[in-house]
Amino acid sequence: NVNKAMNGAGNLMDFLDEPFPDVGTYEDFHTIDWLREKSRDTDHVTIRNKPTCYHSKESIWELIKSLLDAWSGWVVMLLIGLLSGTLAGVIDLAVDWMTDLKEGVCLSAFWYSHEQCCWTSNETTFDDRDKCPQWQKWAELMTGHAEGAGAYVLNYFLYILWALLFSFLAVSLVRVFAPYACGSGIPEIKTILSGFIIRGYLGKWTLLIKTVTLVLAVSSGLSLGKEGPLVHVACCCGNLFCSLFSKYSKNEGKRREVLSAAAAAGVSVAFGAPIGGVLFSLEEVSYYFPLKTLWRSFFAALVAAFTLRSINPFGNSRLVLFYVEYHTPWYMAELVPFILLGVFGGLWGTLFIRANIAWCRRRKTTQLGKYPVLEVIAITGITAVLAYPNPYTRRSTSELISELFNDCGALESSQLCDYINNPNMSRPVDDIPDRPAGPGVYNALWQLALALVFKIVITIFTFGMKIPSGLFIPSMAVGAIAGRIVGIAVEQMAYHHHDWIIFKNWCRPGADCVTPGLYAMVGAAACLGGVTRMTVSLVVIMFELTGGLEYIVPLMAAAVTSKWVADAFGKEGIYESHIQLNGYPYLDVRDEFTHRTLATDVMRPRRNDPPLAVLTQDTTTVEDVETLIKDTDYNGFPVVVSRESERLIGFVQRRDLTLAIKNARQKQDGVVSSSVVYFTEDAPQLPASNPQPLKLRRILNLSPFTVTDHTPMETVVDIFRKLGLRQCLVTRSGRLLGIITKKDVLRHMAQMMNQDPESIMFN
Amino acid sequence: NVNKAMNGAGNLMDFLDEPFPDVGTYEDFHTIDWLREKSRDTDHVTIRNKPTCYHSKESIWELIKSLLDAWSGWVVMLLIGLLSGTLAGVIDLAVDWMTDLKEGVCLSAFWYSHEQCCWTSNETTFDDRDKCPQWQKWAELMTGHAEGAGAYVLNYFLYILWALLFSFLAVSLVRVFAPYACGSGIPEIKTILSGFIIRGYLGKWTLLIKTVTLVLAVSSGLSLGKEGPLVHVACCCGNLFCSLFSKYSKNEGKRREVLSAAAAAGVSVAFGAPIGGVLFSLEEVSYYFPLKTLWRSFFAALVAAFTLRSINPFGNSRLVLFYVEYHTPWYMAELVPFILLGVFGGLWGTLFIRANIAWCRRRKTTQLGKYPVLEVIAITGITAVLAYPNPYTRRSTSELISELFNDCGALESSQLCDYINNPNMSRPVDDIPDRPAGPGVYNALWQLALALVFKIVITIFTFGMKIPSGLFIPSMAVGAIAGRIVGIAVEQMAYHHHDWIIFKNWCRPGADCVTPGLYAMVGAAACLGGVTRMTVSLVVIMFELTGGLEYIVPLMAAAVTSKWVADAFGKEGIYESHIQLNGYPYLDVRDEFTHRTLATDVMRPRRNDPPLAVLTQDTTTVEDVETLIKDTDYNGFPVVVSRESERLIGFVQRRDLTLAIKNARQKQDGVVSSSVVYFTEDAPQLPASNPQPLKLRRILNLSPFTVTDHTPMETVVDIFRKLGLRQCLVTRSGRLLGIITKKDVLRHMAQMMNQDPESIMFN
Repeated sequence: NVNKAMNGAGNLMDFLDEPFPDVGTYEDFHTIDWLREKSRDTDHVTIRNKPTCYHSKESIWELIKSLLDAWSGWVVMLLIGLLSGTLAGVIDLAVDWMTDLKEGVCLSAFWYSHEQCCWTSNETTFDDRDKCPQWQKWAELMTGHAEGAGAYVLNYFLYILWALLFSFLAVSLVRVFAPYACGSGIPEIKTILSGFIIRGYLGKWTLLIKTVTLVLAVSSGLSLGKEGPLVHVACCCGNLFCSLFSKYSKNEGKRREVLSAAAAAGVSVAFGAPIGGVLFSLEEVSYYFPLKTLWRSFFAALVAAFTLRSINPFGNSRLVLFYVEYHTPWYMAELVPFILLGVFGGLWGTLFIRANIAWCRRRKTTQLGKYPVLEVIAITGITAVLAYPNPYTRRSTSELISELFNDCGALESSQLCDYINNPNMSRPVDDIPDRPAGPGVYNALWQLALALVFKIVITIFTFGMKIPSGLFIPSMAVGAIAGRIVGIAVEQMAYHHHDWIIFKNWCRPGADCVTPGLYAMVGAAACLGGVTRMTVSLVVIMFELTGGLEYIVPLMAAAVTSKWVADAFGKEGIYESHIQLNGYPYLDVRDEFTHRTLATDVMRPRRNDPPLAVLTQDTTTVEDVETLIKDTDYNGFPVVVSRESERLIGFVQRRDLTLAIKNARQKQDGVVSSSVVYFTEDAPQLPASNPQPLKLRRILNLSPFTVTDHTPMETVVDIFRKLGLRQCLVTRSGRLLGIITKKDVLRHMAQMMNQDPESIMFN
Repeated sequence: NVNKAMNGAGNLMDFLDEPFPDVGTYEDFHTIDWLREKSRDTDHVTIRNKPTCYHSKESIWELIKSLLDAWSGWVVMLLIGLLSGTLAGVIDLAVDWMTDLKEGVCLSAFWYSHEQCCWTSNETTFDDRDKCPQWQKWAELMTGHAEGAGAYVLNYFLYILWALLFSFLAVSLVRVFAPYACGSGIPEIKTILSGFIIRGYLGKWTLLIKTVTLVLAVSSGLSLGKEGPLVHVACCCGNLFCSLFSKYSKNEGKRREVLSAAAAAGVSVAFGAPIGGVLFSLEEVSYYFPLKTLWRSFFAALVAAFTLRSINPFGNSRLVLFYVEYHTPWYMAELVPFILLGVFGGLWGTLFIRANIAWCRRRKTTQLGKYPVLEVIAITGITAVLAYPNPYTRRSTSELISELFNDCGALESSQLCDYINNPNMSRPVDDIPDRPAGPGVYNALWQLALALVFKIVITIFTFGMKIPSGLFIPSMAVGAIAGRIVGIAVEQMAYHHHDWIIFKNWCRPGADCVTPGLYAMVGAAACLGGVTRMTVSLVVIMFELTGGLEYIVPLMAAAVTSKWVADAFGKEGIYESHIQLNGYPYLDVRDEFTHRTLATDVMRPRRNDPPLAVLTQDTTTVEDVETLIKDTDYNGFPVVVSRESERLIGFVQRRDLTLAIKNARQKQDGVVSSSVVYFTEDAPQLPASNPQPLKLRRILNLSPFTVTDHTPMETVVDIFRKLGLRQCLVTRSGRLLGIITKKDVLRHMAQMMNQDPESIMFN
């Protein structure tokens, strides 16, 4: 990596006047220094604001440029909103079409999805709007027979074939063109936002390939969603537009502000929930979230949501993915089943995280990881074979959730709404009394129970494969199925046992007191909360889906219960677990460090280590420096007054040092191996016989961050977290004792929590 | 203040074993050290988690205690929610009753408000539900005549009399019992949350008196609202419940986490907007807002909102203050008037802040401030005299806003809805075509214009008087009036000029295209935004009022425009301006510091100052220390190895030093003026003839925060802001050079912005 990064230094600028390029940039898989980025931004501002005295023509151009610069933040947000909204719309339309392609084709126009095909057909009535002659299943098209065992088998076979084709295409594209396009991307984005560098993770190729393969992966019918990957896509858009403005492309700190906002736009289009998106970015993804970013995120989220709405992929001019409207309020007594659903969600979250991490670890460490294509093909095959026979798993997962959330209105024709109506009662549209369940409902219950088991098992194996895969939709599906089953059970109990003490006070006979759809929604929130440990953003997303404050208490009760239950078994959510699995240096703001260790216990060198590698301000030669760089792999070296006094004067980055010496050797006459490197303000006048000195004060950081050896580690962790440091020097009464890097902090924290400190791999 | 604080040190504990009380506490009007508070909390946690080996009976008690301790955060939130919800409900009911009392009384039960009185009356029909025989105006009751000039004058006179009585009571109670109960309280709460100590500001007396006087002040008809003070009331509740748990009462940092959540609960009950409350706390009030506080704030806000709903003070089982439902969407072209309203809001915000601050400064510096009671009486008198004749100013401001927000439905009998109906058309309830305005509307327009001018002028003089006074409602009223006027103007233009190019595309004749109520809402958001500079929380509050995502774009457009326009004239909102006026040490997270000064330019001692007052680790005597404390007023002193080497070893607080010496002189034998003070780990063995040494390492902070003299001030500001420091020591190559306190930072920032640095008064 070091060699790769040195390629950019071959320019001809005068070394003493201008800093050579790449000084102050970072290597791949390294952590940025937030404080340095911030103060570099100020340099930029100061240059921007310098008084201008141009001629009239130039001054207008300058004015436009400075205005553009001042507004560039908002312009970037606008562009992100527009592009991510558009991409989300295109993805929605393509997924719709390709999901239906597995079952059949529209004869009038093959690019129509089932729903669009039957919309344009005039022959259908409202009741059977899903059945129209233009839409033909494959068996009907090929053999002319729509019914019968032969047609079923043919359709089944073609469904599996299409699924395999889609997933094979997806995994091949990912492998060949953009390996970073796999997974949900949220763990990596969290790490990147916390100040880590993964080059190419948010690049143009990743954007393109992730968009295409996301469509393929979702259409293949695998148990995965598009919400997490949409956040990744939006962040790629953000990164793309950052490169338009040097203010953002040259400053890793400012770039991360834009990415935080882009993540908000991603969730905003994934669910049609702009406020939920902003809170998601704040609660779950972002690391450094100043108020300015809050405002800009909100703007980006709004633009994205309205771009999506004008594309109108769901054809209902609704912003939201699952629009629901319930007709009855909830009652206090219902909190008991809601809290039980919360417990279920917490348990599911724990089970899922443990099993999924165990499986992913196995994939990393065994032969399994060497055959990603085969793995995807196998899982797709199993999914398709098992999913087709069950109507609740055959359809797309978001359709399933939508049906489970729905209240059974009078016009509903779904199997789940097959209640036995009392023929003596008139049926107003909105006021349906409670009714006994019909055979359809009992049938649906069995199918749903099977679907629940299937989803739980298959999702564990699906998340983490080498294709784009989100977790929101499968988690919500598990919760929605469980919730609907509980809801129907409570509803039927209430109908058959009005006299039970638990129903007596609030549910009179003939009243519609239980809404099973609400239980499905609460269950979905609980399961999603158990897996991701979101609370506020989750409730707000759910609340934006329904648009009513009424159901905030059930949702909150379930979300908080689920978080408590899941936290009891392990603090990390799925994203943090994957970050840990990959060994990224992520300093979670949520972890509380409450141990009584001191900086002196964590700093290096340890008791029996060789002494700290330092440079002196005026006695080191170029050769000494080169030897030090060759022999060690530290990212930087403290500079002291002399080896005897050990008084710290600054810190120099390894990368800058390498570049500076290479540059000087190429372009500065007289710099040889025995030249003395000076970090002091003025190099002394040396006799002409001595080799030319090399002055490097320019690359010396004169304000390195120091703490004393008595500082509690808790304070050190807090400082690293809040200031985003890479490293921190440890002193005692002005004497340099050692160094603590972010990796040291993370390893110490892992050790204190009885985890393997070696799992943190990067600095 | 120093003398006052020393009273608490008179205990008999053994000095060497236990720290004496009050060490590590703060004096009034001083800033806390967040890092120290945080690490003290860890001590507490570590003690809590120590292994317990009690007998069975004790262990159950211990278990309960540790459970309670772990859950104490949530318990406090629950209690805050319950109490602030209850108080808000009681305040609402009392204000309702007392506002009506100014006009008349309910004969059937004098404690009924006008609305409640006529509810209980069975004789009224729906149309004149405001007129019922039980409710009698004062003139009718006293003279028997309900109509006529005499009755009008008598009512007018009594209205003024009641108003004067209420406001006199309010201001007297505030002056006598709780001077801190005046104003909105939000500037002080912002300062307190940023780490400042104002003892008694959130005390029990303030809570009680603020609740009572808030009712009186609002009922007196002055141009003020109850929203800001409700935040203060909720924070008082939070502080009250903190004292139940030592975890919160003993740690200023933890206490502030609770107060942040309490502020959210306050806004939640003020508007019935729990999510808006949390965001308000996050965006506007809080300083340190970890994720844990986000979750707890949300919980507290929800509990508060639902407590208020079960009290149901508005009698409509709605959670929200102004519930509105519009029947038509908005059109793109309407963004032009919405943005104009945003500009108006921004200008109003600028005008209000400048005029109000100028008036408040005058009050502080001239004779005016010496007669607060007279001032309140005079303003109340002027308000009452001018308000009574105009029906839009006579009623309570929240009723006015509610009417302005409302859509003109078919059943609306308000003057504002006096449109000329086309008799040929049938009138379905929800689908009213556009209509020409009737005389009532034109009449209302005049009255509204007068009310607008009146509200603008009187609010400037009202906010800042020595009674509880909120700013939300008057600001919203100004915006709502302006918005409604613009809305009616656009509506009538669209009706009369359907062929104009600007209306052609979206407004066909006969369609109801313009909703004046929506304009009122947008105007209210714009004006509130201009004054407070909120954006996201403002839009969310407004969005929770209407419960529809549809109007988020108009609201956002107006809020952002208003913020931009107002920011162009001055960065500070009204709360920051009042903080500045009072000289509180508030380090705003929003201010960007982009100057190129270094720590060395800001630190004291300056170039020509006497050298820094330091203590040495083993050569200072008790007398030296006492002289230093007497001669200087610094809050703390650095401790160095020796005056020659100037190598820093720690920092000691003045307060701790004073207490420790006083304690030692009282209780430790042999400590006299010539005793040497040792800050080293071990005091040397001295011959018996020497006086007993005083070992003070216990009170020495061994990890003082240091930066080098080359550190850019931008970084220093960032560190002060993020870590919440009180002071920071400046070193160069391990040598102590000087000190930077929070006050120095703030003064430097003021200087850089060409403001008077002397305006920052506290440290």
